[in-house]
Amino acid sequence: MRDFYLGLVHYPVVNKNKEIITSAITNFDIHDIARASKTFGVKKYFIISPEDGQKKVMNKIISHWKEGFGATYNSDRKDALEIVTLINSIQDCIDEIKKDSYLEPMVIATSAKNQDYKNYKIEELKNILNTDGEPILLLFGTGHGMSMKDIPQINCLLEPIYGTGDYNHLSVRSAVSIYLYALRK
Amino acid sequence: MRDFYLGLVHYPVVNKNKEIITSAITNFDIHDIARASKTFGVKKYFIISPEDGQKKVMNKIISHWKEGFGATYNSDRKDALEIVTLINSIQDCIDEIKKDSYLEPMVIATSAKNQDYKNYKIEELKNILNTDGEPILLLFGTGHGMSMKDIPQINCLLEPIYGTGDYNHLSVRSAVSIYLYALRK
Repeated sequence: MRDFYLGLVHYPVVNKNKEIITSAITNFDIHDIARASKTFGVKKYFIISPEDGQKKVMNKIISHWKEGFGATYNSDRKDALEIVTLINSIQDCIDEIKKDSYLEPMVIATSAKNQDYKNYKIEELKNILNTDGEPILLLFGTGHGMSMKDIPQINCLLEPIYGTGDYNHLSVRSAVSIYLYALRK
Repeated sequence: MRDFYLGLVHYPVVNKNKEIITSAITNFDIHDIARASKTFGVKKYFIISPEDGQKKVMNKIISHWKEGFGATYNSDRKDALEIVTLINSIQDCIDEIKKDSYLEPMVIATSAKNQDYKNYKIEELKNILNTDGEPILLLFGTGHGMSMKDIPQINCLLEPIYGTGDYNHLSVRSAVSIYLYALRK
């Protein structure tokens, strides 16, 4: 079983008009994704943003649940937030994973659309996760998705989640939950 | 294929101290669950609360995305919110489904814990959904879960979602997304 890391990317992502932006960190993304990550055995959940002001505010909220009144009021939330790390960039995630494991991680991106990358089926990645080897870092974009060409570290892409029809506009919180379940069940 | 309905229950649910309460409707529950429901072919997503004041505010938000500026700004959101119905009670959902289909729905509850009810495996309910027959209404509790004994209409329970360890504190948004994916893939 490989070590499994998750990253929520706020930069470089695109907006509605395909311009590269830094998206805002949201409170629900922290909690929902931390709880899903903890449920499905993710080792660390990285929230990736270069915006120091936002990271400062978010660290204050996380501290409330990890060390403040929230930690005794709701210890389940404390346990989930223990695995959250606010970090500057995808490269910094990779460096931190290398410090943890002495191995270069495989970096796998997700997207709601098929793109021009080597593409893994969910079942294939599930099998890889169950073997020994280098750690896996699975990346999710916020906003209107990651700007793939500006992320040279990506090794390959995980297939999109398909619905029952043409509509596939899941929230990132839903997409993370479904992928984690499908990869770990 | 049966008609498939989803209900998010705000009453009767319990709080941390197991007292029966009416929980607050939250904006993220509307959007995330509407988008997941639309993706996986749910016919109607009922948001169940007896609080008229809250339903009024939420209807205003939904109208913004269905008919106001939001409808042209983000038509994907409009499409998802078309299936949302704010409604008073579980009995009212059942009555509305009966009006749609002239059939009494099977009412199936979800819970993070095993409880003293007839219990379906996810795979069993998936097979039932793929046959013809009466519609299915799948209910999700908010707060600390539904007060099952106060909901006489429930026919049976769907098995909990299991994680990789002991921790299973998914948000209701994550749980809905995972169940819909697992039942419909």
